[in-house]
Amino acid sequence: MRNIKLTIKFIGTNYHGWQIQENGITIQETLTKAVCKVCNDTAIKLIGCGRTDSGVHALKYTVSFKTFSNIAAERLPLALNTLLPIDIVCISAEDVSEAFDASRSSVRKTYTYFIHNSQIADPFLFPYTHSVKGFLDVDKMKAAANYFIGTHDFIGFAATGFSVKTTERTIFNLDVVKKDDIISISVTGDGFLYNMVRIIVGTLIEVGFSRILPEEISGIISSKKRVLAGPTAPAKGLFLTEVYY
Amino acid sequence: MRNIKLTIKFIGTNYHGWQIQENGITIQETLTKAVCKVCNDTAIKLIGCGRTDSGVHALKYTVSFKTFSNIAAERLPLALNTLLPIDIVCISAEDVSEAFDASRSSVRKTYTYFIHNSQIADPFLFPYTHSVKGFLDVDKMKAAANYFIGTHDFIGFAATGFSVKTTERTIFNLDVVKKDDIISISVTGDGFLYNMVRIIVGTLIEVGFSRILPEEISGIISSKKRVLAGPTAPAKGLFLTEVYY
Repeated sequence: MRNIKLTIKFIGTNYHGWQIQENGITIQETLTKAVCKVCNDTAIKLIGCGRTDSGVHALKYTVSFKTFSNIAAERLPLALNTLLPIDIVCISAEDVSEAFDASRSSVRKTYTYFIHNSQIADPFLFPYTHSVKGFLDVDKMKAAANYFIGTHDFIGFAATGFSVKTTERTIFNLDVVKKDDIISISVTGDGFLYNMVRIIVGTLIEVGFSRILPEEISGIISSKKRVLAGPTAPAKGLFLTEVYY
Repeated sequence: MRNIKLTIKFIGTNYHGWQIQENGITIQETLTKAVCKVCNDTAIKLIGCGRTDSGVHALKYTVSFKTFSNIAAERLPLALNTLLPIDIVCISAEDVSEAFDASRSSVRKTYTYFIHNSQIADPFLFPYTHSVKGFLDVDKMKAAANYFIGTHDFIGFAATGFSVKTTERTIFNLDVVKKDDIISISVTGDGFLYNMVRIIVGTLIEVGFSRILPEEISGIISSKKRVLAGPTAPAKGLFLTEVYY
């Protein structure tokens, strides 16, 4: 049996996240239909690299699945893209070893969050950024970012409604970069709790507004109290940008 | 009476172009409602810098109007943006001399057309580019572009259904630039006939596919025959990018 890895890109706006659910159309459901049709195999189960929240986008999202189909891997992207809606695109496909699992084999992921920090909104950026009108102090945000790096119990930076074995996660990098009106926040970690990236971003925005001091971050993390962190930044500014294996 | 110049930016996807018409919502209609409300003046007539086709976008589109309102010009963008839908944004506003007319005072305009030349479509680029899968020879397109520069009768590069005094227009610049998968075609002229930019782009694409030779362009222009030029490229790749006064 073959094991195939797909890399896809999607606009999350019209989807209820990755994972199949009863209450809305998801990326997994839409992609599964296309993969089953192209492979002429109705039993295919897609494994995604992670759950993405409703409305979150991906520049690179990886999927694996097993099949007896003998379609050449290099033909898969074009075949899938003729069936997929335009907001989901398969970029590449390759045969991988049997042990590969898009979720479990992943060792790190990078998410990037885009803030459009301007008095005047931009219609082209609006669906893909969080528009923040007031001035954000990026130097303070950079200083605060450093306190997140390392291994911590991030339960105070998680929404309820999840079940995980441990709430300890390691953040390897957290970079805040400003270019023109765009502040991009890139975070690389071994995994993220439910809404964790968006709560980190919401907290960094509070720091940018000087409502939280950079040096308060360590205390907020160790308090494990959700209420001390900032609000959850909107999904539309968040992109999954890299998955490492 | 004051004369005010607005600079706006819009996503044209959901509009039937600039000019008010009976069969669909236009930028002019939508903006007029907001301006009348903010200025508390129902008699305002907006003058746009030109008709843009249905579905064409603008990074910079200029508008002028006369009013007795005494709202400070610098307050207009934020006031308008709270009323406007997110796909139309007012970037700036200023008082101008009585003689200024957004349409008649304009001496040059620049349009930029974006082609995404890739086997694999991109969901984020799709609404703002023309996706061309086959390989386009950009060197040939550059060579062909030079033949358009100058003053010509461009009637062969115009759709029917327009009425203008003359079909002679001057093109000052026509640049074809490739960066990664994006080919951008920027054209600056003293004015453009109906669909003229999109027909020039459609013709350059034929050149890129080697179906028209660069040195054939002069003959196609002087033939004045629409049928010899290329097809009209789709509106969604076209942006008005600059208006000169």
